[in-house]
Amino acid sequence: MTPTNTAPKPAPIIDMDLDQDGDDGHGSAYGITDREATLQARHQTETLGQRPGSLIIREGALKPRLFLYSYDDTTFIEAEYPRYDDLWAAFRARPELKHWIDVRGYGDLSLMERLMEDFDLHPLQMEDVLGDYQRAKVDVFGDNRLFLVSRMTDFTSELEIDDDQLSVFTGPNYVITFQDDYEDCLDSLRNRLRGNFSTTKRRPSLYLAYALTDVVIDHYFPTMAAIGDYLEGLEDRIFSERRERRMLNRILRIKKDIVRFRRLVYPERDKISEILRLPDEVMPEEIKVYFKDAYDHSMQALDLAESYRENITSLTELFLSDQSNRMNEVMKVLTIISAIFIPLSFVAGVYGMNFQRESPPQGPNPLNMPELYQPWGYPAVLSLMGLMVIGQLYYFWRKGWLSKQR
Amino acid sequence: MTPTNTAPKPAPIIDMDLDQDGDDGHGSAYGITDREATLQARHQTETLGQRPGSLIIREGALKPRLFLYSYDDTTFIEAEYPRYDDLWAAFRARPELKHWIDVRGYGDLSLMERLMEDFDLHPLQMEDVLGDYQRAKVDVFGDNRLFLVSRMTDFTSELEIDDDQLSVFTGPNYVITFQDDYEDCLDSLRNRLRGNFSTTKRRPSLYLAYALTDVVIDHYFPTMAAIGDYLEGLEDRIFSERRERRMLNRILRIKKDIVRFRRLVYPERDKISEILRLPDEVMPEEIKVYFKDAYDHSMQALDLAESYRENITSLTELFLSDQSNRMNEVMKVLTIISAIFIPLSFVAGVYGMNFQRESPPQGPNPLNMPELYQPWGYPAVLSLMGLMVIGQLYYFWRKGWLSKQR
Amino acid sequence: MTPTNTAPKPAPIIDMDLDQDGDDGHGSAYGITDREATLQARHQTETLGQRPGSLIIREGALKPRLFLYSYDDTTFIEAEYPRYDDLWAAFRARPELKHWIDVRGYGDLSLMERLMEDFDLHPLQMEDVLGDYQRAKVDVFGDNRLFLVSRMTDFTSELEIDDDQLSVFTGPNYVITFQDDYEDCLDSLRNRLRGNFSTTKRRPSLYLAYALTDVVIDHYFPTMAAIGDYLEGLEDRIFSERRERRMLNRILRIKKDIVRFRRLVYPERDKISEILRLPDEVMPEEIKVYFKDAYDHSMQALDLAESYRENITSLTELFLSDQSNRMNEVMKVLTIISAIFIPLSFVAGVYGMNFQRESPPQGPNPLNMPELYQPWGYPAVLSLMGLMVIGQLYYFWRKGWLSKQR
Amino acid sequence: MTPTNTAPKPAPIIDMDLDQDGDDGHGSAYGITDREATLQARHQTETLGQRPGSLIIREGALKPRLFLYSYDDTTFIEAEYPRYDDLWAAFRARPELKHWIDVRGYGDLSLMERLMEDFDLHPLQMEDVLGDYQRAKVDVFGDNRLFLVSRMTDFTSELEIDDDQLSVFTGPNYVITFQDDYEDCLDSLRNRLRGNFSTTKRRPSLYLAYALTDVVIDHYFPTMAAIGDYLEGLEDRIFSERRERRMLNRILRIKKDIVRFRRLVYPERDKISEILRLPDEVMPEEIKVYFKDAYDHSMQALDLAESYRENITSLTELFLSDQSNRMNEVMKVLTIISAIFIPLSFVAGVYGMNFQRESPPQGPNPLNMPELYQPWGYPAVLSLMGLMVIGQLYYFWRKGWLSKQR
Amino acid sequence: MTPTNTAPKPAPIIDMDLDQDGDDGHGSAYGITDREATLQARHQTETLGQRPGSLIIREGALKPRLFLYSYDDTTFIEAEYPRYDDLWAAFRARPELKHWIDVRGYGDLSLMERLMEDFDLHPLQMEDVLGDYQRAKVDVFGDNRLFLVSRMTDFTSELEIDDDQLSVFTGPNYVITFQDDYEDCLDSLRNRLRGNFSTTKRRPSLYLAYALTDVVIDHYFPTMAAIGDYLEGLEDRIFSERRERRMLNRILRIKKDIVRFRRLVYPERDKISEILRLPDEVMPEEIKVYFKDAYDHSMQALDLAESYRENITSLTELFLSDQSNRMNEVMKVLTIISAIFIPLSFVAGVYGMNFQRESPPQGPNPLNMPELYQPWGYPAVLSLMGLMVIGQLYYFWRKGWLSKQR
Repeated sequence: MTPTNTAPKPAPIIDMDLDQDGDDGHGSAYGITDREATLQARHQTETLGQRPGSLIIREGALKPRLFLYSYDDTTFIEAEYPRYDDLWAAFRARPELKHWIDVRGYGDLSLMERLMEDFDLHPLQMEDVLGDYQRAKVDVFGDNRLFLVSRMTDFTSELEIDDDQLSVFTGPNYVITFQDDYEDCLDSLRNRLRGNFSTTKRRPSLYLAYALTDVVIDHYFPTMAAIGDYLEGLEDRIFSERRERRMLNRILRIKKDIVRFRRLVYPERDKISEILRLPDEVMPEEIKVYFKDAYDHSMQALDLAESYRENITSLTELFLSDQSNRMNEVMKVLTIISAIFIPLSFVAGVYGMNFQRESPPQGPNPLNMPELYQPWGYPAVLSLMGLMVIGQLYYFWRKGWLSKQR
Repeated sequence: MTPTNTAPKPAPIIDMDLDQDGDDGHGSAYGITDREATLQARHQTETLGQRPGSLIIREGALKPRLFLYSYDDTTFIEAEYPRYDDLWAAFRARPELKHWIDVRGYGDLSLMERLMEDFDLHPLQMEDVLGDYQRAKVDVFGDNRLFLVSRMTDFTSELEIDDDQLSVFTGPNYVITFQDDYEDCLDSLRNRLRGNFSTTKRRPSLYLAYALTDVVIDHYFPTMAAIGDYLEGLEDRIFSERRERRMLNRILRIKKDIVRFRRLVYPERDKISEILRLPDEVMPEEIKVYFKDAYDHSMQALDLAESYRENITSLTELFLSDQSNRMNEVMKVLTIISAIFIPLSFVAGVYGMNFQRESPPQGPNPLNMPELYQPWGYPAVLSLMGLMVIGQLYYFWRKGWLSKQR
Repeated sequence: MTPTNTAPKPAPIIDMDLDQDGDDGHGSAYGITDREATLQARHQTETLGQRPGSLIIREGALKPRLFLYSYDDTTFIEAEYPRYDDLWAAFRARPELKHWIDVRGYGDLSLMERLMEDFDLHPLQMEDVLGDYQRAKVDVFGDNRLFLVSRMTDFTSELEIDDDQLSVFTGPNYVITFQDDYEDCLDSLRNRLRGNFSTTKRRPSLYLAYALTDVVIDHYFPTMAAIGDYLEGLEDRIFSERRERRMLNRILRIKKDIVRFRRLVYPERDKISEILRLPDEVMPEEIKVYFKDAYDHSMQALDLAESYRENITSLTELFLSDQSNRMNEVMKVLTIISAIFIPLSFVAGVYGMNFQRESPPQGPNPLNMPELYQPWGYPAVLSLMGLMVIGQLYYFWRKGWLSKQR
Repeated sequence: MTPTNTAPKPAPIIDMDLDQDGDDGHGSAYGITDREATLQARHQTETLGQRPGSLIIREGALKPRLFLYSYDDTTFIEAEYPRYDDLWAAFRARPELKHWIDVRGYGDLSLMERLMEDFDLHPLQMEDVLGDYQRAKVDVFGDNRLFLVSRMTDFTSELEIDDDQLSVFTGPNYVITFQDDYEDCLDSLRNRLRGNFSTTKRRPSLYLAYALTDVVIDHYFPTMAAIGDYLEGLEDRIFSERRERRMLNRILRIKKDIVRFRRLVYPERDKISEILRLPDEVMPEEIKVYFKDAYDHSMQALDLAESYRENITSLTELFLSDQSNRMNEVMKVLTIISAIFIPLSFVAGVYGMNFQRESPPQGPNPLNMPELYQPWGYPAVLSLMGLMVIGQLYYFWRKGWLSKQR
Repeated sequence: MTPTNTAPKPAPIIDMDLDQDGDDGHGSAYGITDREATLQARHQTETLGQRPGSLIIREGALKPRLFLYSYDDTTFIEAEYPRYDDLWAAFRARPELKHWIDVRGYGDLSLMERLMEDFDLHPLQMEDVLGDYQRAKVDVFGDNRLFLVSRMTDFTSELEIDDDQLSVFTGPNYVITFQDDYEDCLDSLRNRLRGNFSTTKRRPSLYLAYALTDVVIDHYFPTMAAIGDYLEGLEDRIFSERRERRMLNRILRIKKDIVRFRRLVYPERDKISEILRLPDEVMPEEIKVYFKDAYDHSMQALDLAESYRENITSLTELFLSDQSNRMNEVMKVLTIISAIFIPLSFVAGVYGMNFQRESPPQGPNPLNMPELYQPWGYPAVLSLMGLMVIGQLYYFWRKGWLSKQR
């Protein structure tokens, strides 16, 4: 129960040495198609034919770990319970406290069913929890209980957005959360609870649901910051003399991430907007003020995503124009060299460079290349060639072909 | 009446050996235009001039097969009736049970008219059933009966989305379904009914209408999964050294499928959204909870389709950039070879390579190519050529033209 | 009064021998800009300065022909009246029947003014009728009368969408329609009226207004079918070895048609949607059921148009990629020939092919091309050239440049 | 007070001799950026730091001319008043008439202030009038007075849309209009008032506000007609053999006009739509009927603009494809000539064309180019060359490179 | 307390000598990705893990300067207070006046907390103030107090839009503003207050909140004007003979600015639109009239931004077409030179230019190049070459390749 280190996690730094990024074991070698979407479709296919509300534990699900945080203005009790019965007993023993039941990992069907029963959760909701592909949403159930789904994002060093589902159920004096991983982005909130000055502890348990939503949204920004840094890095490299391979590939890959991020955040914003329209007996005005703040934050995250999306379009245009420019440059080299040497070769071909040759026996015919028999013939032709070269270079210089133009 | 095998059908695997795909007997050789749309327009043209609500059996319609599933909490009776009168008798004999009348195939006009009459269906609705091109929709008729249309999709191995119409009419204690094929995607639902633990059997017959909708939506995901796999396969092949022919063709063809899929799913989502807004006496709250779940699933399917659509755009950009790159490479080969050999040819042309030739009788004129008369003339020119080659190769290497750049 | 042949008109077949299509007398030679739009703008310019509601007969308007169809459940009387007074008398003589007054052609101002007065039509409405460029719309006037405008489409063999306006006014026991042409797409409806089993005859005259709308919408599908066939034809021809000239031109021309079609159908859908929201005293529920069906049909027509529009985008991308591919192929031919022969020419140039030449008097200098004096010199150089050719062909084959790549 | 000639102004004809259009004194040489927008921004910058509602006369504003038209069913009095006091007196003298006070030119601040005071106008409204950059809008002020802004367009022969603001204030029995120019598009309305059959004169003064709006909208069509004609002209010229310079420039310039036109007309439509939603005591139903007609017209104008916008996209695609085709043609010429002559040159280079040369003293070595010593050598090589040319021409002809392909 | 010079700031003029703009110390070298967005994401990352509503002073925040402007119809008192207690005393001493408390700089946490407490501000609002990345918005708090956020823009000479946050709180007789910089765009408003004729002084303090919003919106126009001027400059330069480097880069950079500007102004418009819908007890009708005017101005700013955005698209198309044209020109030079000289070289190669050579001992063979032995051989070949050149030049001239085509 020692408080863990919760220094704010810095925005991940993506190694710009990108040349290896085709080899990191993705489904496809380049990562432009949305693999997560396909995985989701496949997973939903697997559950095909089940009756609605039937609980299915996905293969590889972690064994659940159970935590209980009980608090009021002055108290804070925190424990991990290996057995659910102990947790249930502890929870029932202190009805005057507010409780956060924190379930991490889904790998125990009977436990899930007991939770469903003890806390009166609907099978369809529990199916959403375990399915792990639910968009952010809010459902009102019972009289005034809420079922909230958020998606927590993380930007991995493989340029992928990793997202996990956080499912939250509220009750009169408790909040239950489900997630499929032991690690999450909620440690900062746990630490605030452990501290002495937490406003969360003084407020009703519904505030905890807000606090969870808020932490998730706040974690969208490091992802965005990492994407922004990566974009700036890409931009710097588009024009570099020796462009890396597959630059467009990288642009499109980060575009895929941004598109996915928007797909995650839009429902989040809609969810909060729906919460703000809930009647006051479900969501009291004093908590709505906080959700209004969360709404502003989700709008800011969307603004950033839209902004980056526009940037991606610009980068793509720039890349394609640069590609065209490089072709242009190749053509210029070809044209300049051909334009200079093909005419020179012709001149050399005409004269055969047989200057000062023996006069034919009958004497040189003045119509037939008499200049070949002159002593100044060779220097004259050389000068002609030189003049041709100078003339063409001047022409190309005036056209600006000799300088680099990007 | 043996329960058929209903193991969830795996997502179809599309053979990536695509080179034959131009020869599979489509309307057009490449499958980019939406043939289904044209077929629909042609079919609607054929019914031109009929009065609204007139029933027309399409050519080639299958002879109807009639099934009746009767159930309550504890009972389940299932039978196929070759004659409609028997089915009608069986249905009337047990008013205390809930019934699913399952009509497969439309090829009997008088039967259709009897059904219309016995179950009090509107001619316009029956026209929608037989027309088979109705978008997903919901109509309320009578006092609180529903007419639901869904579109069942299948992704064939020829990269086409095959969609069939499922028409559902609800009544006080029965549900009638119409479809034009003997095969469908509802076997999993039938099997659940046959089992002992079906919640469907305990609930009102309206729940069956939900269950049918839910199964149809669930079958969108294998289609999406197959499309996603195909996209990843395409992506891997764009960069392969010997690109197959007609790559863009394939990209655009799968794009057509995705666009069609969206056209099918959008009305489905709107239909459910309309159901959720129905008054409680038509659609009780307890069933709405389930439709809300179906709504979430339809949103997920749309999310996937949108995601793939973005991917298609990226793949197209990548393809076009790669095409441009390949041209660039051709140009580089031309430029490098021309740039090296054209100047060399010029040098060879100037000297005519007539080294160590006989001095002319009057002795060599020092102005006229005296180097031809020197013993070191040939090696010197060879060295000059060698230096030119090295210089140019260095220039091209520094520009990065000698390495592959994609 | 003999019933005319009303077999459903087949979808027009567009001759794919398209090479003449630039010469068919359009405004512009290529038909990509929307000439109809310009004609409309010009027409509206001509009426500039008239007071609102002033009736203007367009030049070239046909002389009106007047038809009266009078019917009830069992009666059907049909006649063409050369004089309006006779029609008016016949109409007034049978108030117990329902009447359809069918006016074809606008070229008689005083007749129009009499109709306006006798049937109490608003000058602005009559201006809309004669202007012939009104979008589909519905106006309620009087207490519960309707003014409906529809646009009837036809797809001509010159790849143009020909559209005419059908204006419908409803009254207590009659419907008046106006159109500017003698030919139309309503013959199937007239024939149904002539038959014995017409439901139209049993229903209030408002149903006739529905039936007219429905026939117009049904005629959108042959147009769509023709466009679909044409698109498939275009697709097949994009890749043909000897592509016809102006392929993109044709793609963009049909795109213009599709865009125009959408412009016609969107207001039609909005019109019906507005009808469905009319209060029951204006539009009784029993007729609304039919308009709901017409709404579904208009949605289907829009779906088709959207689908074709996506196809057009794909075809354009395909065309441009193919264009780029053809350039690529030209470059490859150039590169292969240049890359093979330019180095060969250089080798031939170096040796001058003067093998076995006379040794110079002082004997051959071992530094100066001694190989020219060897008997094996010529075969050796020939072999060298052969090896160079083989090496390059291998290189090009391995790069896949020798096979066609589209 | 003589009625001026008001024959409807023909749609302007734009001289298609476009080569001079870069030199007509625009801000930028090519007219693609929206100069009007920049001028507007600059003007708004100039008024920076003024308090809201402060009146500023723009430099160069014309001296106001004041007209008063007074009318009822049978009367029509029209006069220009050099002094405002006379106009005011005339206006006050006949309270039983309806009046149109027509102010042209803004260049007199004190006059503007008197008008503001006498007719009880809000300073913010007056600021809108003088600012001259207000979008079309409607404000209700006082109890039921209206402030309407319209934008009058004109299409100049320099391919620019010239727009002026028409500001209209309504009162119990009068209408005041403001515009900054002496010339306008309202003469047709004035002439109708002068005539004997004007419905305007019989209707309340609010109808005049409608009539003004209607005339402005009607004048959008000549602009659209001129743009349409210009587009058709452009289309014809894209393919002409000797394409004019800067074709894309012209396409983009007219696109800018169309975009600007839409920006002007959209608010106009929204304005009328807002008028149609005004309560009946502000806008009586009998006038709304007319505004509904104006709404239809504004929708038609928007339809035309959208249509042209699509055309512009098609023209741009066509232009770019044609540009690419022209490059393709250049490459083909290069390739054909190179492919024919480079191999020929090689053959000529090999043989040196030294046929029938002296046998070397030791006799010709049978390994070394023995064909040079044969009498048939030269004709044989010439025939070989001829065959090569024929073969290549056949190859190019079969590929279709010898015919023009656009 | 001397009134500072408040002549309206002219629109900034951006130096068009753009070649240095890569070196001005941006994050990325080219400025196409939205650096501000990344900075915002990073800043929000830094505050991660803080409890909502916790105040964090950003590093480098300026020490606050405190100004108090107290006024009524006839009074105006203005002072800067180094100590907050003095300001507080002065504010409390004159409750009959209206006050503007103007806080510039955030660098003092305890001061911020005192302000929050004294003026009863919500911690979440104060967090928004200090966070400095809030979109424009309006919150109602307390009974009828407003919290308004605006974003003030400035267009720097480095082509960046510099935006600062202005936070405004209203109270019964005061307005508090916060901004993080000592310089702002509000001096014109302060000067108006100092003057004698300020309407602001006569109106309730809420009018001051409007006046602040209005000044901020008015300052959008100089930014737009500068962008417009820059665009016109860019347009002029696209076609210049020696195009500067990185032209597309500049186009995309200014596009980024326009996109950012829209992101700033859209929320501003929505904010005002929300204000206009506030109930009259929070926002009286007399002030709403003014906000309606501000709404019109924000729409105008958005119109300008949309217009420029379209222009950018056109400029990009123009640039890319010009880039393609330049390549075309390079190809033409190559083709013309190659097409002329390669055939000439072939002719020269055939004849070896050995005219009038010694007849071989056995006499010239009439089959083997007899023309070499004729006196007219050389002039004939020269003429042949001349004819070839003339023919090709004519061909190229007719194709229009010899004139410049852009």
